[in-house]
Amino acid sequence: MAMYVVGHKIPDSDSICGAIALAYLKNQIGEAAVPTRLGDVSPETQFILDRFGFDAPELKLSYAGEEVYIVDHTEKTQAPDDIDEATIVGVVDHHKLGDLTTSTPLECWIRPVGCSNTIIKMMYDFYNVEIPKDIAGLMLCAILSDTVIFKSPTCTTADIKCVEALAEIAGVADAKELGMDMFKVKSAVEGTPARDLVMRDFKDFNMNGKLVGIGQLEVIDLSVFDDIKADLEADIAKLKEEGGRHSVLLLLTDIMKEGSQMLIASDDESIIETAYKVTPEQSSVWLDGVLSRKKQVVPPLQDAFA
Amino acid sequence: MAMYVVGHKIPDSDSICGAIALAYLKNQIGEAAVPTRLGDVSPETQFILDRFGFDAPELKLSYAGEEVYIVDHTEKTQAPDDIDEATIVGVVDHHKLGDLTTSTPLECWIRPVGCSNTIIKMMYDFYNVEIPKDIAGLMLCAILSDTVIFKSPTCTTADIKCVEALAEIAGVADAKELGMDMFKVKSAVEGTPARDLVMRDFKDFNMNGKLVGIGQLEVIDLSVFDDIKADLEADIAKLKEEGGRHSVLLLLTDIMKEGSQMLIASDDESIIETAYKVTPEQSSVWLDGVLSRKKQVVPPLQDAFA
Repeated sequence: MAMYVVGHKIPDSDSICGAIALAYLKNQIGEAAVPTRLGDVSPETQFILDRFGFDAPELKLSYAGEEVYIVDHTEKTQAPDDIDEATIVGVVDHHKLGDLTTSTPLECWIRPVGCSNTIIKMMYDFYNVEIPKDIAGLMLCAILSDTVIFKSPTCTTADIKCVEALAEIAGVADAKELGMDMFKVKSAVEGTPARDLVMRDFKDFNMNGKLVGIGQLEVIDLSVFDDIKADLEADIAKLKEEGGRHSVLLLLTDIMKEGSQMLIASDDESIIETAYKVTPEQSSVWLDGVLSRKKQVVPPLQDAFA
Repeated sequence: MAMYVVGHKIPDSDSICGAIALAYLKNQIGEAAVPTRLGDVSPETQFILDRFGFDAPELKLSYAGEEVYIVDHTEKTQAPDDIDEATIVGVVDHHKLGDLTTSTPLECWIRPVGCSNTIIKMMYDFYNVEIPKDIAGLMLCAILSDTVIFKSPTCTTADIKCVEALAEIAGVADAKELGMDMFKVKSAVEGTPARDLVMRDFKDFNMNGKLVGIGQLEVIDLSVFDDIKADLEADIAKLKEEGGRHSVLLLLTDIMKEGSQMLIASDDESIIETAYKVTPEQSSVWLDGVLSRKKQVVPPLQDAFA
């Protein structure tokens, strides 16, 4: 029986590229594996797949009775809906330890680095398997995406060294330039419906019993949002109601200015003030230096809810 | 600030030896670490410490405000009582994924092998740190203990290879003979109070909301229990009541005959029949071929409770 290698819901480039890279590695060491995905491929990820000549992994939502290797999270809210009926054989992740549990022993490759693909590179090294040129390209781009071209506070020296090694394998002369090309694609938001933008990189978190959704859009210049900000605000308010959420937050991240504007739809806006020591105006606030949802947005909010 | 490296409550040899071995490794790579323990050292573990010239790690029960590296489990019931007020910086484990969660990224070295110390050996290899002779001896004994000298179904080729490598470093000519010496010490149960025996290797599990305690005593010949079985039966019944547990099970494991007698104190004995397809008589049952609590006792019981 082949295992399925799958990232989180609303897959980002780390989830998609990681599933492909890890499934290839598993097949090389004699464990049959198929990469899959839990949702649509983002324009950024599509750019990466096209650049290195890959099709998107198969869309597969149900895993009951199957063996699953989880990429890029350990959270039930981000896993397949029927994950409790599957057997989790492994996890590769770089986030806090979430609420997934298993009834059998498994392998977990979890490290406090900037990207799951940095850990997958460690796995290739551990098993002494050569990384094909095109897969090195996928992994490289996933790391550039997750670390915001090394600018994110989540970025570690392990990530930077990994990108250097992968760029050499992939034959990419200037990794940072490739990263900028990727973020330019990511910045093209015009003409996309508000809901699609909000959901492009959206994660739900259980914060002390309250459901909090946090979306993030990383662009090269926030001016791309000038004409659609009202639509985004209306949509996150709607999304909050639809999902019975306590809050929906949308981070508009300017990767050049290195900060994020947070749009807020919340049952209790004061929790934002408690978490980040800033006062929202018109349900919006500028968070200077904030690039990372995982490291700079989620932990203070979790503390505020605790 | 030094991190504390600590195994589970009612520490076994894997928890104690693993804490010492991992703390040494962490110090070698520039991360200050102190091994600690959550309970008394068993006669088996004391034999190992004496054999290789170590003192027991410091007994430390409270970790609020500290950094903690967890060894040999991911279960809240087996962790320090105030673990929620500590920062878990890492986990090394070989069991199913339990209910511990964190609010920050961490490292997890979890593998489906027979012993945490086999994984700690992988960590030494990863960081390219030489294992001192005496620490290799501790690690070696922990693996022989957890794998019941390679007889347990939890034992993998990784464990066997690891013992071979560690025996060479430790200068142990015959690892299996050392293992038998260790199990002879473990088999000396006469004169020890029943409660001490029951608690010697005892773990609580949350099974679908019910608390189930499972103890295990591994000996070379079950006849050592002939005169004290009634005391053990009375004690597990008492332990069940004291802790508000659904069941307390005590495995008397014969490592030469390769099977376990299970003594049962339960609110509903039929769950044992459901789990293991055998009918208890006088609250006791022989489980042929059963050596591993983790692999052969816990999963079927968890399924029966689900």
